[in-house]
Amino acid sequence: MGQIKVTFPDGAVKEFAAGVTTKEIAESISISLAKKAVAGKYNGKLVAYQAGLTEDGALEIITKDSDEGLVVLWNTASKVLAAALKQLYPEMHFGQGQETEHGFYFDTDNQAGQVAETDFEKIEAKMKELVKANLEIETVSYSKEEALKLVAGDPYQTELVEEQAQEGQVIGKKLGDFVDFSNVVTLEKTGAVKVFKILSVAGAYWKGASSNPMLQRVYGTAFLKQKDLDAELVRQQEARERDHRVIGNKLDLFFVDPKVGAGLPYWMPNGATIRRAIERYIIDKEVAWGFQHVYTPVLANLDLYKQSGHWDHYREDMFPPMDMGDGEMLELRPMNCPSHIQVFNHHKRSYRELPLRIAELGMMHRYEKSGALTGLSRVREMTLNDGHDFIEPDHIEDEIKTLIQLMTEVYHDFDITDYRFRLSYRDPENTEKYFDDDEMWEKSQSKLKAAMDDMGLEYFEAEGEAAFYGPKIDVQTRTALGGEETLSTIQLDFLLPERFDLSYIGADGQEHRPVMVHRGIVSTMERFTAYLTEIYKGAFPTWLAPKQVEIIPVKNELHFDYAKQLQSKLAAHHIRVSIDDRNEKMGYKIRQAQVNKVPYTLVVGDNEKAEETVTVRKYGEEQTQAMSQADFMAMLSRDIESYSRKEN
Amino acid sequence: MGQIKVTFPDGAVKEFAAGVTTKEIAESISISLAKKAVAGKYNGKLVAYQAGLTEDGALEIITKDSDEGLVVLWNTASKVLAAALKQLYPEMHFGQGQETEHGFYFDTDNQAGQVAETDFEKIEAKMKELVKANLEIETVSYSKEEALKLVAGDPYQTELVEEQAQEGQVIGKKLGDFVDFSNVVTLEKTGAVKVFKILSVAGAYWKGASSNPMLQRVYGTAFLKQKDLDAELVRQQEARERDHRVIGNKLDLFFVDPKVGAGLPYWMPNGATIRRAIERYIIDKEVAWGFQHVYTPVLANLDLYKQSGHWDHYREDMFPPMDMGDGEMLELRPMNCPSHIQVFNHHKRSYRELPLRIAELGMMHRYEKSGALTGLSRVREMTLNDGHDFIEPDHIEDEIKTLIQLMTEVYHDFDITDYRFRLSYRDPENTEKYFDDDEMWEKSQSKLKAAMDDMGLEYFEAEGEAAFYGPKIDVQTRTALGGEETLSTIQLDFLLPERFDLSYIGADGQEHRPVMVHRGIVSTMERFTAYLTEIYKGAFPTWLAPKQVEIIPVKNELHFDYAKQLQSKLAAHHIRVSIDDRNEKMGYKIRQAQVNKVPYTLVVGDNEKAEETVTVRKYGEEQTQAMSQADFMAMLSRDIESYSRKEN
Repeated sequence: MGQIKVTFPDGAVKEFAAGVTTKEIAESISISLAKKAVAGKYNGKLVAYQAGLTEDGALEIITKDSDEGLVVLWNTASKVLAAALKQLYPEMHFGQGQETEHGFYFDTDNQAGQVAETDFEKIEAKMKELVKANLEIETVSYSKEEALKLVAGDPYQTELVEEQAQEGQVIGKKLGDFVDFSNVVTLEKTGAVKVFKILSVAGAYWKGASSNPMLQRVYGTAFLKQKDLDAELVRQQEARERDHRVIGNKLDLFFVDPKVGAGLPYWMPNGATIRRAIERYIIDKEVAWGFQHVYTPVLANLDLYKQSGHWDHYREDMFPPMDMGDGEMLELRPMNCPSHIQVFNHHKRSYRELPLRIAELGMMHRYEKSGALTGLSRVREMTLNDGHDFIEPDHIEDEIKTLIQLMTEVYHDFDITDYRFRLSYRDPENTEKYFDDDEMWEKSQSKLKAAMDDMGLEYFEAEGEAAFYGPKIDVQTRTALGGEETLSTIQLDFLLPERFDLSYIGADGQEHRPVMVHRGIVSTMERFTAYLTEIYKGAFPTWLAPKQVEIIPVKNELHFDYAKQLQSKLAAHHIRVSIDDRNEKMGYKIRQAQVNKVPYTLVVGDNEKAEETVTVRKYGEEQTQAMSQADFMAMLSRDIESYSRKEN
Repeated sequence: MGQIKVTFPDGAVKEFAAGVTTKEIAESISISLAKKAVAGKYNGKLVAYQAGLTEDGALEIITKDSDEGLVVLWNTASKVLAAALKQLYPEMHFGQGQETEHGFYFDTDNQAGQVAETDFEKIEAKMKELVKANLEIETVSYSKEEALKLVAGDPYQTELVEEQAQEGQVIGKKLGDFVDFSNVVTLEKTGAVKVFKILSVAGAYWKGASSNPMLQRVYGTAFLKQKDLDAELVRQQEARERDHRVIGNKLDLFFVDPKVGAGLPYWMPNGATIRRAIERYIIDKEVAWGFQHVYTPVLANLDLYKQSGHWDHYREDMFPPMDMGDGEMLELRPMNCPSHIQVFNHHKRSYRELPLRIAELGMMHRYEKSGALTGLSRVREMTLNDGHDFIEPDHIEDEIKTLIQLMTEVYHDFDITDYRFRLSYRDPENTEKYFDDDEMWEKSQSKLKAAMDDMGLEYFEAEGEAAFYGPKIDVQTRTALGGEETLSTIQLDFLLPERFDLSYIGADGQEHRPVMVHRGIVSTMERFTAYLTEIYKGAFPTWLAPKQVEIIPVKNELHFDYAKQLQSKLAAHHIRVSIDDRNEKMGYKIRQAQVNKVPYTLVVGDNEKAEETVTVRKYGEEQTQAMSQADFMAMLSRDIESYSRKEN
C-alpha cells in the first residue's frame, strides 16, 4: 500500500500509509484528542472514525462536543431507535434514518399498526436497554445475496441494497441482530446515547417523493448533557407556541376538515378579518406603485397550460382536468402567469405602456399529497399575491430595483426583519437543463447582481437554484418550526414570452419581444397568514387584529350604557370593538382579553363614566392608563396607521 | 249543434250556435268592428278569428291596433319569415316560431350553413314577396301519416307532429307550399305584415332545454305603421347602448375569450377597480350590520353535496367531479350554503350567538351550456355576495326585516329604484312538490307577508315560485334587454338544517334546530356589475369610476409640472387620477375624457397654475367651473361619500 498526504486545518501536511483511519491519526496527535474524537471530516465529507482513508485529502477531526459531533450522536441515536423498534415490532419495515436540524428520525412502516405517542415511553425504555448494553455498531460488508436475504420482505431496505449493489459494494450497519442499509456515520458503540427523548411522529414519503408510499417518521433528539436536552425541549415548546396551527385553533382563525377536503382551509371570521386587512393593504400598496389589479378565472381550457408548458412539466402538481362534454377540457390553474398573459395579449401593446404591471390575488390549485398538507402553510387551494411585469429588455435592472423597494417597504410595514436575499443562478455545470440562451443568462444574472449591489443589499448566491426560464431573487425566511421558506420572489422569464409570441411596438415602430417578471411580495394569503401568526405569536398588531378593542364594564347594570356609547363611537371610526357583558368577574374578563390577545382593553366604571374617560390596558402590559376618549382615539389611530412597525 | 253562452267584457251575455267564430260574432255586433278585428280571446286564451267556439265562455274581440293585435301580427310575421326561409333554404329544418316581447322569431337549423346578418336583406325581400301576394294562411287538419310525410327529414317538426297526434288532432299552418306544425294564432292572410324588419340571429336550444340541440333563432319585429317600427328601432338601439357587453368592451372593463374558456370572464384593470369598490362596500356594510365574513374553499368532497342534496337535485348544473386518486372525489361548489354550514358546525352553538350571520363573497361554478352564456350576466364562474343566517324559529320576522332594511339601504346607495318585491309561496295545488310540513309553510309564508306589511312595502305574491325548502322574497329588476332578473333574495330554509342535523343550545339548555336564511343582496359580482353598467350606461358614479379624475394640461411643456403636483395631492387622498399628457389637441383630450366617462376633467393652464386653482368639467356637463384646489377636493369627497345617490 502507498502513502497518502493528509492536510490539517492549520495547513500542516503529513504522510500516512493509505488506509489509515481517523482514529489512528488522532492517536498519533494526542491521546486526549483521540478520546474526544468521534469521526473525521475528509475532503468535506463525514467519515467514520475507523474508516480507512485511501487518497490525499484535507482532514478535520470531529470531537464529540462539536456541532458535527452532535450530528454523529444523532445518527447513532437514529440507529438505536431503529434497532429498538425492530425488537418491539418485528414485522416493521425500515426506510432511512439520520440526523435533522435539531435531532434525528427514522422512517418506518409498521405492518401491525402505526406507532402512537403512547408508545414513546416503551420505545425509550427499549432504547435505554440498548444504550446500557453499550452494543457495538458494526459496519459490515455483505454480498448482495446475503444482504437481500437479511432484508427479505422489507421493500425499502431491499431497494437500498439494490442501489448499493449497483455502486459495487453492499455495506450494512449492524447493531446486535438488527442490520439496515441506510448508511450514515455513527459512533462505534451505543453507550454515548445517554440523554435522549422521542418527540413526535408524522408522515413522510419514502425518499421524499409524493408519488411514493407514505411512511411514518419517528422523531427524537439527543444530547451529551441533560441541560442541553432541556434547553432544546424549551425551544421546541416555544416553536409549538408559535405554531400557526396551534394559535389558529386557539384564536379561532381557521380550520381544515379532511373529511370535507384535505388542504382546503375554512377561514373563520377572525382569520378572515386578518386576511382581508392583508389583502386590502397589499392591493392598495401595489396600486399606488403602478400595478394594475385584475380578476382572472381560476379555470381555463387545458390547451392554455399545454401552450404554457405547465401540462408537460408540472402535471403531477395539477388537478385532473374536467371534461365538459363538448370537447372542452377545463383545468384548475396551477399558476396565474398564463392568465396575465391573456390580459397582456388582449390589446396590441406599445412601449409607452411598459412596464405593464398586472397583479392579482389569484386563486390557484395545486395537488399536494395529503400527507404533505400542513395547516395554512401547505394547502391545495391558495390565493397568491401574484404579479407579472411585462418590460422592455433594457429595463430589467430598473424593474428589479422598483420591486425590491416595494418589497422592503412592505417588510417594513409588517415588521419582517429575519430574512435574507438569495440570488439564484443557473447551474454552470448543467447549462443544458435551462432555457437555451447563454448570452441572456450571463446578462440577466449580472443585471440582478448589479441591481442588488447598487442598492447596497446583502445577499448570497446559489448556483443551480434558478428556474428553468430565468434567474431569480428569492427572499428566504425562517418558519417557527425551523424550516427555511421563500416569502417573496422576483423571477425573470424569457421563455413564456416566446411560447405565447408576446410582442409590443417599440419606439422604432417595430415589434419587439418583452421580458416577463414574475413577482410575489407576500406569497399566498394562506402561507403569509401562517407566517405572520408565527412571528407575532398570535398577538397581531392592531391594524390586523380581529378584535382591536374589548370594552369591559365594571358592572353591567351600571356601566353598560357608557360602554355601548363608547362602542358606537369607535365603530363609527371602523374600529373592530366589542363589549364583554357576560356575567363573569371583571378579572376573568381582563384575563380573557389577554388570552385572546386583544390589543386594547378598556375598563369602564364610575369614574370613567362620570369623566367620560377610559382606562386603557395594552396587550401584554400590566399597567393601565386613564385618558380622555379623544386621546385614546388618537393613540389608536396612530397605532393602526403605523401598521406593525416596532418603532411606533 | 247546441247553443253556447258568450259573455262580453261589459257583462252582457248572448247565446250563439256552438261552433260560431269570433268573426261571426264581431260581424253580428258591427261591420266596423269586424273590419278591425283579427282574433278573439276566449276564456283568456287567444283564438283564431275563424276558429269555432264550442263551449260557454268570456270573449274579448282583439282588434289589429291593440296590444294583442300586435301579438297576432308578430305571430303572422314569424310564419311569413319561416315560409320565406323555406323558399331560400329548401333543406332547412324548422323548430317553433312566435311573438316575443318586442317582435317575433323563428328557430331554424340550416343544413347547408347558418343564416348570417348579410342574408337579412335577401330574407326581407323574399318576405315582401309573400306579403305582396297576400297569401292565405290556412289552418289545415292532417292525418298523422300525411303530416309526417310533409315534414319527413325534419326532426323538430316530426316531434311536433308526434306531440299533436298524442293529443288527438294534427293541425298545420299552411302558407303556399310551406306547412309547419308550430301552432300559433295568426292573421288569415299575409298582406297585413307590411312594416317589418329582420333584426338579429342568435343561438337557442330546441324547446329551451340545454340538453337539446342548439338551433338558430332569427329575430325580427313588425308594426302596422312605419313610425312605430322606427320608435322600436330607436328603443333597441338604446338597449344596445346600455348593453354591458358593448360598454364593457368600449370602457375596457372585461372580456371573455371562448377559446380560453367560455363563460369565464377576465376583468381588466378598469372593471376590476369597479368590482373592488363594490366588494369593499358590501363587505364593510355587512360587517357593520353584524355579518361575519369568512373565506371558504371553492372545492369540497363530493359527499358534502350528496348530503346537501345538490348532487341529486342539481347535478346537471354542476361541474364534473375530480377523482383525486386516493378515493377522494372533489367537486367545484355550485352554491355556498354547505360551506357556511361547516362554519356553523365547527363550534357547538348557543342561542346567545344567534342570529349567527355568516357571509362571504363566495366563488361558485355552475355549468351553463355554452349557448346560454352572456357577457358578465350569464357565466360559469361567479362570485356571489352570499350569506346565511342561522336563527331561532321565533326570530324569522325580525330577521327578514333586518335583511330588507339592509337591502333597501344598499339599493339607496347604488340608486337602484326600478325594482319590485315578489313573495314566493309554494303552489297550494301541488304541496307534495315541497318540503313536507304544512304548518311550517303556513306559518313562515304568513311571517314573510307580515314583515313586508309591517314595513309598509309593496309586493306581489307568486304561488308556486317558492324554493323546495321554503318560501322566499325576491327582488325583481329589469335588464337593459328587457328581461326580468332576480337581484336580491331572502329564502327561508327548513331542509338543510335537517339534512346536516344542525342544532344550538337554547335558553332552556336543550338542543334546538335553527332555521337557515339564505340571502343575497347584490347577487354575483359578475351580474351586479353588468346590471350597474346598464343602469348607469357606463357613466359610473365617482365612487365606482375606474378613473375618477383626468387632468389635462393646456400645454404639456408649460403646465405638466402643475398637473403632476395636483395628481400627487389627489393620489395621496386615494383618488384614481391620471394626466393626459399625450401630444394631442386639448379639445380631443376633453372629448376623450367624455367618451371614457371620467366623472371629473380638470383643465390646467396659465391661470390655474398661477392661482393654484383648477377648472373643473363634470361628466356630461358643458359648463366648466373654476375653483380652488381645496374646494375641488371637498366637492370630490362629498361626491364619493354620497355613493351613487342622485340627491347629492
